[in-house]
Amino acid sequence: MKLRVRLLNLDAGGKTIAIINDEDAAELGVHPLDRIVLTKGKKKITAIVNVTDRFVRPGEIIVYTEIKDILGLKSRDFVTAILREELDSKKFIRKKIDGNELSAEEIKVIIRDVVERDLNDLELAALVTGLHIHGMTLNESLAMTNAMVGTGRKPNFSGIIVDKHSIGGIPGDKTTMIVIPIVAAAGLTIPKTSSRAITDPAGTADRVEMVAPVELSMKKIKEVVKKTGGCMVWCGSLNLAPADDLLIQIERPLEMDPLLIPSVMSKKKIFGSKYLVIDIPTGPEAKMKTREEAEKLAQSFIALGKHLGIRVDCAITQGNQPLGYAIGPAVEAREALQSLCNPEKAPKDLIDKAATLAGLIFQMVGKGNKKTAMKILLSGQAEKKFREIIAAQGGNPKVKASDIQIEKNAAKAQIKSKEAGRISYISNRVLIQIAKIAGAPKDRYAGIVLEKKIGDSVRKNDTLYTIYSEKKPKLRCAASVAEENNGYIISTKNMLIKEVNGIKRG
Amino acid sequence: MKLRVRLLNLDAGGKTIAIINDEDAAELGVHPLDRIVLTKGKKKITAIVNVTDRFVRPGEIIVYTEIKDILGLKSRDFVTAILREELDSKKFIRKKIDGNELSAEEIKVIIRDVVERDLNDLELAALVTGLHIHGMTLNESLAMTNAMVGTGRKPNFSGIIVDKHSIGGIPGDKTTMIVIPIVAAAGLTIPKTSSRAITDPAGTADRVEMVAPVELSMKKIKEVVKKTGGCMVWCGSLNLAPADDLLIQIERPLEMDPLLIPSVMSKKKIFGSKYLVIDIPTGPEAKMKTREEAEKLAQSFIALGKHLGIRVDCAITQGNQPLGYAIGPAVEAREALQSLCNPEKAPKDLIDKAATLAGLIFQMVGKGNKKTAMKILLSGQAEKKFREIIAAQGGNPKVKASDIQIEKNAAKAQIKSKEAGRISYISNRVLIQIAKIAGAPKDRYAGIVLEKKIGDSVRKNDTLYTIYSEKKPKLRCAASVAEENNGYIISTKNMLIKEVNGIKRG
Repeated sequence: MKLRVRLLNLDAGGKTIAIINDEDAAELGVHPLDRIVLTKGKKKITAIVNVTDRFVRPGEIIVYTEIKDILGLKSRDFVTAILREELDSKKFIRKKIDGNELSAEEIKVIIRDVVERDLNDLELAALVTGLHIHGMTLNESLAMTNAMVGTGRKPNFSGIIVDKHSIGGIPGDKTTMIVIPIVAAAGLTIPKTSSRAITDPAGTADRVEMVAPVELSMKKIKEVVKKTGGCMVWCGSLNLAPADDLLIQIERPLEMDPLLIPSVMSKKKIFGSKYLVIDIPTGPEAKMKTREEAEKLAQSFIALGKHLGIRVDCAITQGNQPLGYAIGPAVEAREALQSLCNPEKAPKDLIDKAATLAGLIFQMVGKGNKKTAMKILLSGQAEKKFREIIAAQGGNPKVKASDIQIEKNAAKAQIKSKEAGRISYISNRVLIQIAKIAGAPKDRYAGIVLEKKIGDSVRKNDTLYTIYSEKKPKLRCAASVAEENNGYIISTKNMLIKEVNGIKRG
Repeated sequence: MKLRVRLLNLDAGGKTIAIINDEDAAELGVHPLDRIVLTKGKKKITAIVNVTDRFVRPGEIIVYTEIKDILGLKSRDFVTAILREELDSKKFIRKKIDGNELSAEEIKVIIRDVVERDLNDLELAALVTGLHIHGMTLNESLAMTNAMVGTGRKPNFSGIIVDKHSIGGIPGDKTTMIVIPIVAAAGLTIPKTSSRAITDPAGTADRVEMVAPVELSMKKIKEVVKKTGGCMVWCGSLNLAPADDLLIQIERPLEMDPLLIPSVMSKKKIFGSKYLVIDIPTGPEAKMKTREEAEKLAQSFIALGKHLGIRVDCAITQGNQPLGYAIGPAVEAREALQSLCNPEKAPKDLIDKAATLAGLIFQMVGKGNKKTAMKILLSGQAEKKFREIIAAQGGNPKVKASDIQIEKNAAKAQIKSKEAGRISYISNRVLIQIAKIAGAPKDRYAGIVLEKKIGDSVRKNDTLYTIYSEKKPKLRCAASVAEENNGYIISTKNMLIKEVNGIKRG
């Protein structure tokens, strides 16, 4: 069918959307959300159809800027529209939903159609839900990883390439900023890419960005790694595994993560890692609730690694409270920098976890252990390497912790204990929520600095933590949420935590 | 957040879509597809967010006409935007996906949020997939049916209200047009609503529309039923069970039907049916492949009916070939009319099925059986009642089969047998595909008329069927598909059906 183009001066958030009249839709045999293939000369694109009975006349097609740019369209041009053929990938998704194992070839076809944007949001949501419910066999995970690798760009680093990954979920986890310089200082190659925060108050990329640029080109990353042995950059703009990036857009709003293992492993494979340590924080409000769950996940990573030629060790770590004392981009960057410069005075949990993970990498490659890691940290070599890396990325190598001026950029509110006793529980979830209400990660000086952690004694009116916020209304909102439930449980002789009354009394 | 309105002179296919700048989206904490609540004065609407970094400036909001109409907006008005709170229904959907049974209250909340359009397409697709994989318990089906009934408008018919429903899937199934007049002629009340074709070449509403209007208001339907005891109308415009209508928009493209039973039963409950016969066609290319599957579905309908106060009998029927000889709106309407006027000469399978289903209804209410149904049909009472009903709906009561002028409105192509033998198999799927390529159901004179069915003998070059199409290119396309694979298997002494060669020979 030939249709005359009307341009809409608006983008569709990266999607290739076109709008046609409902008569033409019936003629083509398409419903809203179906795909049509649009052709203009030798150029071709699969478009998502919206249908209207107003505003678009029969014989017309309205296109958003994505399609205009790809096909090079001008107003009143003609395009040819045909119905997209039934996709094999749709059949394969149904096969998985119906409880059957997919072959490597079938997974490859699904991933190809994801990357080519041929599958619509409903089909992708059904895929993610099916994978969440049924899980994947080792063979499926392997095929999925290989298919994702196949869609990405591969750099080539030299040396013994190692990596570190955390499945995340623990507020304040700035371990990467300590581990990378320790490992690189030992002469290993550790090209680390990280994400920005998605549902957390800060991601590693957000933290590092306080002291150095993180949005580097692949060429620049190669230079940094060649020069220093390491890097700490944002993975988002590298287009490493486009299928994974597209599926994450479906997984995130559904709060399902069935592709966690292939997603991690495909990126490590693309970067050529040979040794990988994976941190699996476990606790009542962590991603892994029990040790059994965590061990199962660890075994899955290890088994898949074997097939990919990546030696994987996993560390199941304590995830029952924030790591260190700071939560939020700026306060975490400051804490990490202070810990590198003054490891003796640094939070013990942060230093122990960083040394443990770096030590596991050293053990794998036969170059020492946790003690080696501690030695590198305490000798100042890690700090020196950190400054080399941020300088190579374009940051100021002389940066001091006091340059990250929290007090100047943010107002604060102190949250105090309402009773005396010993702290027995801290809710990650509540602190994450409060830090986000305060503005993190977008407002980078927003966040929380804890004064008390599990096991500490408190008196009534002692400060539990300070909330920082760049904007007064956000600070008021965060503080009032914290006053309602500060996330701490303080053990006293009194077993009652709070009365909940159906009828107001008094 | 206050945002200044820019109107987009375009509708969003019934969805309430607004577009904001990505800075404002970050400030609000929303991602594409998230929901925001927009307020203007006392008016409020939940909107789906699209995000762009071009075309929409910070502080602006572009709205499609749906939102403009609901909030009564003018250009440059200000609206207040806030993040939609986390929905309980989303938690309940996740609970189901994770394999747990939902309570009646939880299902009610899900259905409420479906109707209020608070759940987005990804969430709805996840729900449908979860229900497809895990199925529903009897309690869940009951709660789902009641929740759907709660959202719909209820008419009140008098008399003994009975109904007939087919789960569908068999091409050429025009049974309803025969059953309704037989049952109504016996003095029972049978207010039948039907759908238009969704994936088939014709739905009951499409067939009836060849001889009478089917888009009637509820008021008009009540008049028709009061006058004649029956009706044959389209359910689409009645807004009977809005939740079901909205969920079908997700189920159809995913080709999953997990809500079949509540969907059918809620509509029967709304219409006040006390006795219901359900036709479950079964065959290798029907919805139910085996008798065991069909019996399980029948038991589910019966059990749910008991809890709803509806006596249900099911008929598992032969679904291994088209019913009668005609496939497509016009040819089927003609065949149904001919069968009512001349039941002795009508296709035996069609008459047998119609009399069986009507007979089951008579048995349930203690007013006879299949023989009673045959008597009503052969005596001409059914034809008389049919003419009464179509007259009441606004059609011509004197309509003759020859008034439906297929030959005048469509070109034809004959598909001939390539060999001699006896027909042992007819593919429903292939014939459905060919009829649709020929233009059915949109082109209502398009379709297929069979000359041979299973068990018939054929000589080489005998016509198997005739394809009709309103448009020559569609006819050529349908005929060439049929030449490639006509859907018939003809048993000869030769066991080979077709050679498939990887390398072209000759």
